[in-house]
Amino acid sequence: MRMRSGHFVMADEGWPGCAKSLKGVILDMCGVLYDSGEGDGVAIPGSIEAVRRLKESDLQLRFCTNETQATREKFVAKLQRLGFDISASEVFPPAPAAIAVLKDRSLRPHLLVHDGLLPEFDGVDKTNPNCVIIGDAAEYFSYQNLNEAFRVLIGLEKPVLFSLGQGKYYKETDGLKLDVGVYMKALEYACDLKAEVIGKPSPTFFQSVLNDMGLQSHEALMIGDDLLNDVGGAQHCGMKGVQVRTGKYRWPKETP
Amino acid sequence: MRMRSGHFVMADEGWPGCAKSLKGVILDMCGVLYDSGEGDGVAIPGSIEAVRRLKESDLQLRFCTNETQATREKFVAKLQRLGFDISASEVFPPAPAAIAVLKDRSLRPHLLVHDGLLPEFDGVDKTNPNCVIIGDAAEYFSYQNLNEAFRVLIGLEKPVLFSLGQGKYYKETDGLKLDVGVYMKALEYACDLKAEVIGKPSPTFFQSVLNDMGLQSHEALMIGDDLLNDVGGAQHCGMKGVQVRTGKYRWPKETP
Repeated sequence: MRMRSGHFVMADEGWPGCAKSLKGVILDMCGVLYDSGEGDGVAIPGSIEAVRRLKESDLQLRFCTNETQATREKFVAKLQRLGFDISASEVFPPAPAAIAVLKDRSLRPHLLVHDGLLPEFDGVDKTNPNCVIIGDAAEYFSYQNLNEAFRVLIGLEKPVLFSLGQGKYYKETDGLKLDVGVYMKALEYACDLKAEVIGKPSPTFFQSVLNDMGLQSHEALMIGDDLLNDVGGAQHCGMKGVQVRTGKYRWPKETP
Repeated sequence: MRMRSGHFVMADEGWPGCAKSLKGVILDMCGVLYDSGEGDGVAIPGSIEAVRRLKESDLQLRFCTNETQATREKFVAKLQRLGFDISASEVFPPAPAAIAVLKDRSLRPHLLVHDGLLPEFDGVDKTNPNCVIIGDAAEYFSYQNLNEAFRVLIGLEKPVLFSLGQGKYYKETDGLKLDVGVYMKALEYACDLKAEVIGKPSPTFFQSVLNDMGLQSHEALMIGDDLLNDVGGAQHCGMKGVQVRTGKYRWPKETP
């Protein structure tokens, strides 16, 4: 698969030799399959067909996203409405991984996340919090909400901050939007700490997807629009990484 | 002057020898003279008397603040209502310094500041902005406002970000509040740039106060509650720096 003129194009020839060992593909979603925005957003031309053809191939396929504005179920339902043949079990977002970490380390979170994500944490004990989790809260990143998260952290003897991703910004249909990473940096600076990132580009996160496919890292290819979190993160784990020129990709000299 | 039990106490004896060369004192304001909060906030016990006695002494006295929630005039009026004998010409906040920089470099700002500060920029051309200025906007640091500042910056060929101070947090009567520095870090990360700080601890800023007093740095003492921006900044310029234990100072093992 390669990209031409901002669209997905299936390549029938010209694949490099390394493609012969390829057994699985991991796709980023926002900016690769669709652009988020008003309503469900819009599918990127060629991407529905690309997913269909990958599913018909011998390659395993998974979807790896830092989406944290909705539960996995609601998020997948949106993709299905846009026309994608995707099921929830194929999709790996940060929230379920975060819940596993909380359980493993007996942590009770203060949440600064989008209202749409809250149901994922319904079964989680949030009383007397001993850590903070931030996601892509977007308009919920008010001064008051960020200050509240700060006060929880600065009041802890051993402050623990989890960030569901570390992206700088993403593209919606009406322009660029600040992502969770900038608020992670804000709280890191305020509290003199280093956040633990759950989601891309965390090696643990990529490894959980590889485990689910039963593949070694060199057998998998990651395709995304974020050079650092998709391509770099994947390469850091030993996977191949490919950047598409859709989504947040900015053509040279382009101003958004 | 030294601090005891969280209050200002004038010291009549026991000053170190270096005090003999002292010709001027620069006082931080919030956390040293008063705690901000509901209404005008509250004067810190002993501070009104300390300012009075300093004025009666042979020492020159200036006030150096990173306050950016109000114009200098309104800010000084508040201090006067609290009982301080302070006039506007003795007070050095970042906004007038920023306006001088804009003029010097022919820059037109996009402002992300507190509504109370806007009148300071009344005479400044803000059309077709080619830089961004952020101040302690507090509740005006909404997601939408921060995103708007981000879009201006990322759309500039040579993005320039001025931050009116770089504080992490300050203390108000109802608790700790995030300061402009955390939003500076957020935009620095989002746009891959380094902000220019106007205000403490910028050496240029301290130098302008020394110039106004007609003193060399070794002849002046800075007193503040912020170890980095008051004490460290002053020492970096060759001044003496003293930290009070009021304001944001946190006693060992104290949780706010």
